[in-house]
Amino acid sequence: MNETTTDTEEMVDPAALAVRLAEELPADIVEELNEQIPQVGAAILQNLPLDTAIAVLDTPALRDAGEIIEAIPRDRVVPMLTGMSADRVADVFHELDEPVRSDLLARLDTETKASVRQLLKYPEESVGSLMTTEFVSVPATWSVAQTLQHVRMVERSRETVYAIYVLDPRSKVLLRALPLRRLITADPNASVLAAGPTRRPVTISPDASRDDATRLISKYDLLAVPVVDGTGQLVGIVTVDDVIDAIVERQTEEVQRFGGMEAIDEPYMDTGFAQMIRKRAGWLCALFVSEMLTTSAMQGFQGELERAIVLTLFIPLIMSSGGNSGSQATSLLIRALAVREVQLVDWWRVALRELPTGIVLGSILGVIGIARITLWQTFELYDYGPYWPLVAATVGATLIGIVTFGSIVGSMLPFVLRAAGFDPAAASAPFVATLVDVTGLVIYFGVAALILRGTLL
Amino acid sequence: MNETTTDTEEMVDPAALAVRLAEELPADIVEELNEQIPQVGAAILQNLPLDTAIAVLDTPALRDAGEIIEAIPRDRVVPMLTGMSADRVADVFHELDEPVRSDLLARLDTETKASVRQLLKYPEESVGSLMTTEFVSVPATWSVAQTLQHVRMVERSRETVYAIYVLDPRSKVLLRALPLRRLITADPNASVLAAGPTRRPVTISPDASRDDATRLISKYDLLAVPVVDGTGQLVGIVTVDDVIDAIVERQTEEVQRFGGMEAIDEPYMDTGFAQMIRKRAGWLCALFVSEMLTTSAMQGFQGELERAIVLTLFIPLIMSSGGNSGSQATSLLIRALAVREVQLVDWWRVALRELPTGIVLGSILGVIGIARITLWQTFELYDYGPYWPLVAATVGATLIGIVTFGSIVGSMLPFVLRAAGFDPAAASAPFVATLVDVTGLVIYFGVAALILRGTLL
Repeated sequence: MNETTTDTEEMVDPAALAVRLAEELPADIVEELNEQIPQVGAAILQNLPLDTAIAVLDTPALRDAGEIIEAIPRDRVVPMLTGMSADRVADVFHELDEPVRSDLLARLDTETKASVRQLLKYPEESVGSLMTTEFVSVPATWSVAQTLQHVRMVERSRETVYAIYVLDPRSKVLLRALPLRRLITADPNASVLAAGPTRRPVTISPDASRDDATRLISKYDLLAVPVVDGTGQLVGIVTVDDVIDAIVERQTEEVQRFGGMEAIDEPYMDTGFAQMIRKRAGWLCALFVSEMLTTSAMQGFQGELERAIVLTLFIPLIMSSGGNSGSQATSLLIRALAVREVQLVDWWRVALRELPTGIVLGSILGVIGIARITLWQTFELYDYGPYWPLVAATVGATLIGIVTFGSIVGSMLPFVLRAAGFDPAAASAPFVATLVDVTGLVIYFGVAALILRGTLL
Repeated sequence: MNETTTDTEEMVDPAALAVRLAEELPADIVEELNEQIPQVGAAILQNLPLDTAIAVLDTPALRDAGEIIEAIPRDRVVPMLTGMSADRVADVFHELDEPVRSDLLARLDTETKASVRQLLKYPEESVGSLMTTEFVSVPATWSVAQTLQHVRMVERSRETVYAIYVLDPRSKVLLRALPLRRLITADPNASVLAAGPTRRPVTISPDASRDDATRLISKYDLLAVPVVDGTGQLVGIVTVDDVIDAIVERQTEEVQRFGGMEAIDEPYMDTGFAQMIRKRAGWLCALFVSEMLTTSAMQGFQGELERAIVLTLFIPLIMSSGGNSGSQATSLLIRALAVREVQLVDWWRVALRELPTGIVLGSILGVIGIARITLWQTFELYDYGPYWPLVAATVGATLIGIVTFGSIVGSMLPFVLRAAGFDPAAASAPFVATLVDVTGLVIYFGVAALILRGTLL
């Protein structure tokens, strides 16, 4: 693993730094620039060879690319933008404000301008915004030798040449995707159509989601998936490296949202204090306010609490068990829905599985809970009062009820969110905990009222 | 998106099904076989063309591949194993029991046998177990034309030809990685060494982790990363499609473990009831038993509880706030450690950030909590007693303490687990909740003792 680390405290001389960085791989230069403020980054880029500067700007891991580009004089930045891939330019332009965006767009050459304009139109999470418009296509009438010659000509200017896309010469409809290695091994005089696979390639629509592109590329082990519009014409390709970036980003988001906070794009150490508070406080307050319902519920059971203080001892235990079983079910279903193992219409099948699962899991915890109370009482570690067998029965029965309820709620909430058009990963886990906590108290005191009526209550 | 779905209830005639499936893409055949029991899968595979059967067996998404292979007669299965990539054979052999594994291994040709034996030696989560030993390498003395001719010869038998690895002719040390498209565009008479990049490629050790391979491939946008041993010799390559499979698997594991359960490899719907209970009950019981400490803590504060029942009303609210803040910090740090934004040695920097973050977040919740009590009291929605301002102060101060404590514990536990050699994602989240719950009660009653001494307590 060749990597470079640098002391960020050193005095920064952009020109000197650029000389040293020019020897590094673009990904390593990006790491260095991410340690600097955008103005210094801009100065370094201007001192790098143009090819290297372009490769650096082309890397999605580069932060504040918009600000860096704004800080470079217009006449120096235009050749860089022209050399970048159109999809990356569009991504960076998303970060720019007017009038800078329009001004820069106007300075690009006609072809790049058209591509970028087209890409800017697609919504952010769509395949259209992820794809590159720079692919190699040839008409089906060409020979292998002609195609090879064409690849030799265009290789330098194309982001990725893993496959050659063979189009119908008249309608421009995509007919075949020919892997580069097939092209090499094919008879040079053969038709390019005959050299490739005998079936139409797997394709995706520009309106599909990034997750769909990920799923296709992962399922069919593709290096790139062609994007075709409604008429069957090729409009771009999504490459495997874009998908990997998208997966890693999504994974971070998923874990952070699961942890009950808004996703943070920036690395932990680079996130400002104010932003960190903002991203965390919102959810924390929302959950806090929802959780206040538990206080209201407890107030409602004040009479029971005063008569049977012993019941309060098990409140945290019971609530956390409901939360844990709900959290398990939610995490299972969020993933099953994300990788399409389960569809929306399967909700009742899932409910039918979670019901007995919850009952069995709840019974296991119930038995442990009853054993705990019995042991402490028998060995005189604590006195749960004269009605302790009834208290134990209350705790046991409540655990069955609440674990079952947690499993059902936890498994159904991702379906509800998905059906309502939300991302299940965005909200499920913390909300399940709150929902189960409040209902858990109601179940607990309900069961207690049934079992302890006439004795403690 | 070309995909096939089938009615699983239909009568299965393996031969007829095979005829229909022969037209499908391997990934789609795999989906079909995953719906069948291994014996039917084995029968279908025997009825498919050998090439197709090999491609299907080569797909990691195929489930119960070990059982399927066992169910195919030895003389039919050996040609399939020989055609498969050595790394996939090794993966499948991991699933086989003795004596079947040794018997099958003995029947393979010498070269495949040696590769598989070597691969079986690497631990399961290592780069060695993920890599393929089938790569194209040429001595540095060859010309581009010779290399092209060689690629034409071997292309069919190699899993991936995205790059040609150029070795020192004597020491066999890896000198360069030459992308296939560079090979095509280079002058045929040039030396293969001159055609490629001018620097040594990014490499990885076979003992590194899968996560390291993912990080390198994602950072440098590689299609494959060469694996070299201590002497600099090339022993295999890790390809981007293996990495994508590994990421998706890891993502599922991470979310499920975050949800407090053992990771389940199989799709939700295909997991048997007994297995589902087993994977969930273990963690649920462990958390339940740890959470019993809250009951012990509550028992310790029995005196306080009896004197100030009003305190119990806020127990669920306070505990969940600590858990939520801990869960946020844990999810942030698990990801930051996983993608190496933060190193082990940075723990104190993180602690120094989480301390003020926790205090601010806790103060925000504290203010909301105090406002809630004041409002209810003022508008006579509930009577918190004559000392209600002191109760409100207790709740507010406790929230600051517990949210700060949750942030610190939640952010430090991933470091502790990593330092102890565990995967932070494996255990942090649910344990943070339990730890914070128990300590939360102690903080609550400690603060109450300070503020309410002489009044309620």
